[in-house]
Amino acid sequence: MSRTLWNDAQGVPHTIDQRFLPFERREIELRTCADCEAAIREMRVRGAPLIGAVGAWGLALATGADASDDALRKAYERLAATRPTAVNLRWALDRMIRRLAPAPPAQRAALARDEAAAICDEDAACNARIGEHGARLLRVLAEQRSALAGMAGAETAALNLLTHCNAGGLATVEHGTALAVVHRLHEQGVAVHVWVDETRPRNQGALTAWELAGRAIPHTVIVDNAGGLLMMQGRVDAVIVGADRVAANGDVANKIGTYLKALAARDNRVPFYVACPTSTIDVDTVDGASIPIEERDAREVTHVAGRLDAGGIGAGGIDAVRVVPEGSPVANPGFDITPARLVTALVTERGACEPTHAAIAALMRRDAPACGDDRERELERDAHRARAAAAGRQQPDGSHAGPAGAR
Amino acid sequence: MSRTLWNDAQGVPHTIDQRFLPFERREIELRTCADCEAAIREMRVRGAPLIGAVGAWGLALATGADASDDALRKAYERLAATRPTAVNLRWALDRMIRRLAPAPPAQRAALARDEAAAICDEDAACNARIGEHGARLLRVLAEQRSALAGMAGAETAALNLLTHCNAGGLATVEHGTALAVVHRLHEQGVAVHVWVDETRPRNQGALTAWELAGRAIPHTVIVDNAGGLLMMQGRVDAVIVGADRVAANGDVANKIGTYLKALAARDNRVPFYVACPTSTIDVDTVDGASIPIEERDAREVTHVAGRLDAGGIGAGGIDAVRVVPEGSPVANPGFDITPARLVTALVTERGACEPTHAAIAALMRRDAPACGDDRERELERDAHRARAAAAGRQQPDGSHAGPAGAR
Repeated sequence: MSRTLWNDAQGVPHTIDQRFLPFERREIELRTCADCEAAIREMRVRGAPLIGAVGAWGLALATGADASDDALRKAYERLAATRPTAVNLRWALDRMIRRLAPAPPAQRAALARDEAAAICDEDAACNARIGEHGARLLRVLAEQRSALAGMAGAETAALNLLTHCNAGGLATVEHGTALAVVHRLHEQGVAVHVWVDETRPRNQGALTAWELAGRAIPHTVIVDNAGGLLMMQGRVDAVIVGADRVAANGDVANKIGTYLKALAARDNRVPFYVACPTSTIDVDTVDGASIPIEERDAREVTHVAGRLDAGGIGAGGIDAVRVVPEGSPVANPGFDITPARLVTALVTERGACEPTHAAIAALMRRDAPACGDDRERELERDAHRARAAAAGRQQPDGSHAGPAGAR
Repeated sequence: MSRTLWNDAQGVPHTIDQRFLPFERREIELRTCADCEAAIREMRVRGAPLIGAVGAWGLALATGADASDDALRKAYERLAATRPTAVNLRWALDRMIRRLAPAPPAQRAALARDEAAAICDEDAACNARIGEHGARLLRVLAEQRSALAGMAGAETAALNLLTHCNAGGLATVEHGTALAVVHRLHEQGVAVHVWVDETRPRNQGALTAWELAGRAIPHTVIVDNAGGLLMMQGRVDAVIVGADRVAANGDVANKIGTYLKALAARDNRVPFYVACPTSTIDVDTVDGASIPIEERDAREVTHVAGRLDAGGIGAGGIDAVRVVPEGSPVANPGFDITPARLVTALVTERGACEPTHAAIAALMRRDAPACGDDRERELERDAHRARAAAAGRQQPDGSHAGPAGAR
C-alpha cells in the first residue's frame, strides 16, 4: 500500500503532481507552507480528503517556520483562500488551529506535525474500513456468481464492477472510497474486473485506470455512454461510486453522469453502491433537491487535455485540443443527484446502510467501530442483507437478471 | 436551405470535407469516380444516406468517362469496396446499375446523372417530410408550454429539445432526420433551444452544434453525462434522436449512449422521439437483441481530436491527444439498444407511429404520402395522439412533470 501523501526519511511530506497523470508520475516535495498552497491552488492535488491533508501539512510547515499567533493566522488565511469552497480544507485547518492555539508557541511545531500526521492516518484508516465493509458486501455477489457459473458448468469469470469518476487513492491520503472496496477485494483474492467510465469532463476515469493498472487489477476504459449497453448485456455485476454529498434522505450528489448509471442499474437489476465516509453524509441537507449544483468552467467542456501523439508537432507533450466550435455556448453542471430510490446501499467506515432517513440516522448515531474480529457479527449482518437484496433480484418469471443471467 | 451534396453551374457535384469540421468548412469537387471513392474511403463524407448519394455520383461520373459494361462493373466494385458494411452505399449502387444495365451505352451517361440526381432529390424530400411530421408533433408540446407559461404569468420560453449524435443535414443530402424536425420548427417560427450531447466517442455533437450555429438556432453543448440532470431539473421538453436501425418491435439501435438518455426521459416523463426514414426500419429484425453490436476502433476512445489552442505548439492545427493511459485496455461498442417501451413515437416520412409491432407493420403498408394539404387530416390525427400522450404525463398527484412543472 502506498500513500498519495507521505513523509520521507527526513519527515518531509511528498505528494504526486496529478497534473501529469496518467501519463507521468511526478513526485513533489512539500517543504514550505507556500509549496502546499501552490499544490492546492494549481490543482497539483485534487480530491477533498487529500486537499484537507495537504492544507494541514501546510499549517504544520508554517508553524515550523514561525509558531507565533500572527504567523498561524496568516498561514490559515492563505491556505483557506486557495480553494475557498473546499469544505474538507476548512475543516482540516480549523482542527489544526483548535489543537495549536491553546499551546505555548514553543510546543506548537511538534504538535502541528503530530496533528497533520493524525489527520492523514485517520483518513487512511477510515477508507480502509470502507474497503473492508464494501468488500464484504461484494464478496456475496462474487460467491453467487461463482455458484451460478458452477451450476451452469461454466468457468468462473471475474466479478464485473463499473465505476464513474475517480474515487480512488489519488483523491484521498490512501485507499480511496469506491476503489478502496475494489482494492480490498483484489487483496482478498477475489477476481475483479472494473469497467472504468471516462468521466467527461476532466476525464478522471484516466486516473482510476492508472491506479488500477498500478495494482495490476484488470480493467477496461469505456466512454460514459457505454455503461447502459454493458448492463443490458449482463456484463456488469454491480456499480460502485463515491459521493460529493449525501442528503439525510439518502439522495446522492456525485460527479455528473452518476444518475444515468444508476438509472441503467435499476433498469437491469444491477446493485448500485455508494462508498463514502460518514463525513460526506450531511444530515442537515433534507434531500437532493436542496443541494445546489455547481456550474463549472466552460473550458472543461470545450477542451480536452491529453498527450500529443508521437510523430506530431509537440509529440509527447501534454496539451489541450478544442472540441466544441467557437460559436457554440456550453453548459457544465459539475454533479447530479441520484435519488435514494436508485441506490442499493451506502457503504461507510461504520458499515453499510440502506439509503433511507431512518437507516442513515441510525448509522450516524453508531460509534465508529474498529475493523477487527469483533466486527464479524455486524459484517455478517450486512452480508445477510446483501444476500437478501441479491435474492430480490430474481425476476418474476424465475429467470435471474444478474451476471450469469440470460440477458 | 443548402445541401451537403450539390452541383455547381457546370453540373459538377460538390460536397464538404467533414474531416475539418466543425473548425473549417472546406468544399471539395467530385470530378471523377476516384474523387468519390476517396471521399468515402477517407471519411471526408459520413452518414449512410450521404455515402449512398456520393457513391451514386461516383458511378455516374465513371459512366461519363466510359459507359461500357466492363467499366461500369469495375467502378461498381471499386466504390462498393470503399466502405464494405455501408448498406445504403450498396443500395444506391445497385439502383444505379439496375437503371443503367438495360440501356445502350450511348444513353447511359445522361441516364446515370439523372438517376444520381434523383437519389439525392428523394433523400432530401424524404427528410423534409420527416421534418414536417416531427414539427407537427413537437408544436403541440411548444403550444402546451406556452399555455402553461401564460397561465403562470411567466414569459414564454423556448421549447427545449435534447439530441444525441448528429442526425443532421451533414449525414444526409439535406435536412437530416432528427435535425430536420428542429429546422422545420425554427422555420415555422417556433422558439427552439437544443441541448447538444457531445457524443463521445467521435464527438459528432460538434457537427450538430456547427449545423445549428449555421442556422442561428439557439443551442448549448453539454457532455453526455449532463442530460439526466437537465431532465430532472425540468429543462428538457423532449428528446429527439436519429436511428441506425429500428427492429420490427420498435426497439431502436442508435449511437452508443442513446439508451441512457431514454432512461432519463422516462424517469422524468419527458417524451422521447426517434426520427428516421422507413428505410431504417428492418421488419426482418425481430427485436433489439437480434441486432449485432459493432465493436469499433479503440483509438476512438483512447484519443480525442480537436484544434490545438492558439499559443501552443502547432496552434490552430487539428491534432489528436491521447486521453487513456497506454497500459489500459478499452472497449468501444458503437451503438446501444433503446427498448421500444422507452420510445414515445417513431417519426418517419410516412408519419409518426407508436413503437409497437402492429403500428410499425401498419406504417410499412401505408403508401408514402406527399406532404401537401391533403395530409392535413393524418397530421391532425398524429397531433391528437401527441396531445393525448402529453396529457398522460400528468402525475398521479395532479402536478405536471413537464417543462413548467415543479421539478
